[in-house]
Amino acid sequence: MNIATIIGIICGVAILCGATYMSTDSVDVFLNPAGFAIVFGGTIAATFICYPLKEVMRVLSVFMTALGAEELPIGNYIKALVDLSKQASAHGEEHLETLIPRIDNEFLRDGLQMLVDGYSKHELREILDNRIQQFHEQEYSAAGIYRTMARLSPAFGIIGTLIGLIAMMQAMGEDIAAIGPAMATALTTTLYGALFANMFFTPIAIKVEKRVEERTILMCVLRDGILFIKEKTPAPIVRDKLTGYLPPKRWSSIKG
Amino acid sequence: MNIATIIGIICGVAILCGATYMSTDSVDVFLNPAGFAIVFGGTIAATFICYPLKEVMRVLSVFMTALGAEELPIGNYIKALVDLSKQASAHGEEHLETLIPRIDNEFLRDGLQMLVDGYSKHELREILDNRIQQFHEQEYSAAGIYRTMARLSPAFGIIGTLIGLIAMMQAMGEDIAAIGPAMATALTTTLYGALFANMFFTPIAIKVEKRVEERTILMCVLRDGILFIKEKTPAPIVRDKLTGYLPPKRWSSIKG
Amino acid sequence: MNIATIIGIICGVAILCGATYMSTDSVDVFLNPAGFAIVFGGTIAATFICYPLKEVMRVLSVFMTALGAEELPIGNYIKALVDLSKQASAHGEEHLETLIPRIDNEFLRDGLQMLVDGYSKHELREILDNRIQQFHEQEYSAAGIYRTMARLSPAFGIIGTLIGLIAMMQAMGEDIAAIGPAMATALTTTLYGALFANMFFTPIAIKVEKRVEERTILMCVLRDGILFIKEKTPAPIVRDKLTGYLPPKRWSSIKG
Amino acid sequence: MNIATIIGIICGVAILCGATYMSTDSVDVFLNPAGFAIVFGGTIAATFICYPLKEVMRVLSVFMTALGAEELPIGNYIKALVDLSKQASAHGEEHLETLIPRIDNEFLRDGLQMLVDGYSKHELREILDNRIQQFHEQEYSAAGIYRTMARLSPAFGIIGTLIGLIAMMQAMGEDIAAIGPAMATALTTTLYGALFANMFFTPIAIKVEKRVEERTILMCVLRDGILFIKEKTPAPIVRDKLTGYLPPKRWSSIKG
Amino acid sequence: MNIATIIGIICGVAILCGATYMSTDSVDVFLNPAGFAIVFGGTIAATFICYPLKEVMRVLSVFMTALGAEELPIGNYIKALVDLSKQASAHGEEHLETLIPRIDNEFLRDGLQMLVDGYSKHELREILDNRIQQFHEQEYSAAGIYRTMARLSPAFGIIGTLIGLIAMMQAMGEDIAAIGPAMATALTTTLYGALFANMFFTPIAIKVEKRVEERTILMCVLRDGILFIKEKTPAPIVRDKLTGYLPPKRWSSIKG
Repeated sequence: MNIATIIGIICGVAILCGATYMSTDSVDVFLNPAGFAIVFGGTIAATFICYPLKEVMRVLSVFMTALGAEELPIGNYIKALVDLSKQASAHGEEHLETLIPRIDNEFLRDGLQMLVDGYSKHELREILDNRIQQFHEQEYSAAGIYRTMARLSPAFGIIGTLIGLIAMMQAMGEDIAAIGPAMATALTTTLYGALFANMFFTPIAIKVEKRVEERTILMCVLRDGILFIKEKTPAPIVRDKLTGYLPPKRWSSIKG
Repeated sequence: MNIATIIGIICGVAILCGATYMSTDSVDVFLNPAGFAIVFGGTIAATFICYPLKEVMRVLSVFMTALGAEELPIGNYIKALVDLSKQASAHGEEHLETLIPRIDNEFLRDGLQMLVDGYSKHELREILDNRIQQFHEQEYSAAGIYRTMARLSPAFGIIGTLIGLIAMMQAMGEDIAAIGPAMATALTTTLYGALFANMFFTPIAIKVEKRVEERTILMCVLRDGILFIKEKTPAPIVRDKLTGYLPPKRWSSIKG
Repeated sequence: MNIATIIGIICGVAILCGATYMSTDSVDVFLNPAGFAIVFGGTIAATFICYPLKEVMRVLSVFMTALGAEELPIGNYIKALVDLSKQASAHGEEHLETLIPRIDNEFLRDGLQMLVDGYSKHELREILDNRIQQFHEQEYSAAGIYRTMARLSPAFGIIGTLIGLIAMMQAMGEDIAAIGPAMATALTTTLYGALFANMFFTPIAIKVEKRVEERTILMCVLRDGILFIKEKTPAPIVRDKLTGYLPPKRWSSIKG
Repeated sequence: MNIATIIGIICGVAILCGATYMSTDSVDVFLNPAGFAIVFGGTIAATFICYPLKEVMRVLSVFMTALGAEELPIGNYIKALVDLSKQASAHGEEHLETLIPRIDNEFLRDGLQMLVDGYSKHELREILDNRIQQFHEQEYSAAGIYRTMARLSPAFGIIGTLIGLIAMMQAMGEDIAAIGPAMATALTTTLYGALFANMFFTPIAIKVEKRVEERTILMCVLRDGILFIKEKTPAPIVRDKLTGYLPPKRWSSIKG
Repeated sequence: MNIATIIGIICGVAILCGATYMSTDSVDVFLNPAGFAIVFGGTIAATFICYPLKEVMRVLSVFMTALGAEELPIGNYIKALVDLSKQASAHGEEHLETLIPRIDNEFLRDGLQMLVDGYSKHELREILDNRIQQFHEQEYSAAGIYRTMARLSPAFGIIGTLIGLIAMMQAMGEDIAAIGPAMATALTTTLYGALFANMFFTPIAIKVEKRVEERTILMCVLRDGILFIKEKTPAPIVRDKLTGYLPPKRWSSIKG
């Protein structure tokens, strides 16, 4: 999804700028530093009353990762789990211990370690379920930071326009010709607020939420896989159950 | 639903265009390529930050299928399942194996294959339930793409109008007579945004969501049918249970 | 609720028309056939992309029934079920068979027929629960048609006004005196959209949703009654349980 | 909460009226009987299409009760239940029968009567749970009447303003000086709509919803108390369990 | 989170004020005591119809605590619980009794006291679950007070502007030059309403909701810890289960 998206974004932004450029002969009016400060400063200040800076940055980095990266390779994890399940039934659980250090995914490694340590199936399920639920709730609510910013920035855009309009109207009366440019400047903050919300904050929020959903599905796959290994379920059943987590059109794509 | 709908759409669009045509003597003002580029380009760019192109196209094709096709024939599937259940109790589960290759629906074929392969009832239910839940969640959230576009396009319509208004006001002062046409042009983008949202994106989203609901109900019918065959439930109970999934007015329409 | 409501509606509409009539000396301006076509045609066209005509008409007829009819007589059904439960314990289940053809309500008749046919309690509960759930989901989502129309019609009202404004502004410049009437005409479509949404579509949607809730409660009462008869629960317990479904102030109104 | 609230309301309304009075030299313009009729008549007419008059009045009386009354004394009920539980274990369930007629709360009296009548714990729980659930759903949805009116009244305020604007614009052209007062009159309906929604309907809806929540908590306390008496649970456990329903800061306030 | 946030807020507010100051040469117009009274008085009056003063102040103090304080040290509580669990298995439950008076957290102290008093595991779970659920529901709905104020204050801002506009228009006709300043004054109330909602009420509501979530998670940790001590679960399992409640990146941070 990588390159196509970036081309799409660049084209879209270029069209937006080009159309703006063509519609006016003085682009300067669209640059309003005081207005920018009101919209951006106000949104940031209101956000920082409710969320710590660290959290805002962390969610932004989740977004950057999600933008650059491919989809999570859930299919590969399913193949790896079917493999592990075959090895566990062939060589016993002890054999798994030698494989654990080679596993990248921390959730899977921790789960297998607990399995090897002899935790009961019920304990395993409780611990893993709790982790998945907490991961989903906490990450999803973190994505809410950008939902909040997407709601705040148009509000501060309108606040900026109101400030500009009030200042303009207060000075009105003598020179009608001055109304136009003053009103143009006042409206730029509404434009900034709408652009921030719809070009930055809303897409970031949606992308991060989608990423959290994908990672939650991956964690469910890993949890089910670990529990199947614990139960020594035959590999075909493991495969049939886990492929259900893939998008429907790929249900037949994992063959034993 | 097919032909009536298409006639309805054509009439509606014709009325909309006709009323517009009659209300003005220069239709040209409604054609604003730069404004179209802002609304369409902006919506597309913002959408492509969060969703891959492939996904957007896939959901569009679900919509086209749903538009062209009749309602899903759930009644026929119920009859077929009652039939299969009679044959399975008469000739045994092995007989089913010969029928499987003739079944079109992939979900039913996979389910019956697992039944013939000797999966336990509990395993069957877990695997099928998981597939239904994943299908519903993933497809429903895919329909959200068009909900997102329906929210973005009026926003970009307003952004386009703001750009036009700011450009106009900045140049204002000398020639009052120029305000009218410039403002008319600026407002066309709001019109585009509202039309896109209400004539395209919202109806597409609703149609796709309805289609997903219908297919989920069909999958529940097939799951219950497969489990009834596994349990060797008598055919009348199968029929009474499955007809409950039909719309209430058709509950008595399937007779043994 | 019947007569009072109709008087209420007529008074309300009369007040609305009277106040409009008194506020202007030329009522003609409020009649704008082209605008009416845009709002009504647009709403209908967008609705017919997502819903078949048959469904739209069916939900409208549910509304007409609900408007004309009294509240569902849940209290009477409870008395009838307590009666049936006494007869079933006195004369046995076979006696019920002779009573079934006299029962109007299809859901109750089907349920008692299954009871007489010897379905187990578990099967009865599954079949009836499934029917209630499907009834509730499918009917409630059908009421969503009018929710959709209530959202679309103000949007098309604004679309009509934008079309009118753009046409007016494009022609502006020469004759300032023509602005007033042209703008008045343009605004009528917003008025139509707001009136359709708030006087027709929203009330219809709420009424139909309430009717579905009421009928779902009735179906729960009937399901519990049938299961109590199956279990041969003593009549006082049947009565105490079922009266819980009535509005709280009537909990003491059904006496054994 | 009683007196403070009423002082608060009176002060608030006084400030609102005073500020309005000071901002203009002719208060008459704010009195617009035709506009009042449009907003109030329209809201009432649309409401009466979906809800019967009886229901609207009943919910209003719940609001008046809640406004005048103190918080529900849940703490006292808990003490009473702990007491009853001690007496029941000391003197047996038969002793309860003599106490029942002295109990005010109908839900508690009915529940204890069923307990004395020898209903099993399972039957008691089912009957009481069903009553609590129905009470909550039906009362909460009744509060929705005022939510609906809070949504309808600004809409009819805007409808009134549109009617006024259209009438004004249609007559425009000759006398520019007449625009101001006509527009002022047209805007009063928007003001009425906003005031009705924010000063009456929304607060009523919130207050009634809060009251329903409080009464539902009280009913849960009574249900648990009755079941504890049935089970002959020791009084300290009854107290520890029931105090959990109080606001957290009062968890230690009930001492045995 | 403390200092960074405060710097953030101060900078943001400074930018907002500075930009306002620079955009006009007469700051007086932004000070409109009558408008302030309408917005603030109206919001307060409408809020006090539904909520008692005591409750409004209590939630405000929760906000002040949350603003000044660090994050809840859930990690430390987990370590303390693992410790308690080791001591309980080494020295028996009686030893816990000597530790209880030293515990600050009331929820934990009450829970351990019940454990020492010999309540069964089932009773413990019921009592603690009920307390957590009631805490969450009641505190979360209390945060709703500020959500309500965030919705009411823009509405009263618009009400104030409407009052100002109506007063202005009524007096219009003679002196066009007076329109500007009057309109500027009228718009200040919309500005106040938007600022109150987006700088005060919404951030307070979000902060309090986040605090309630955090404290609910802490209570879940303490409940699970108490139940593990009751069950004499080995310390490593206690640690593995409880760390699941931490943010995902800290799952490995608590080592035995």
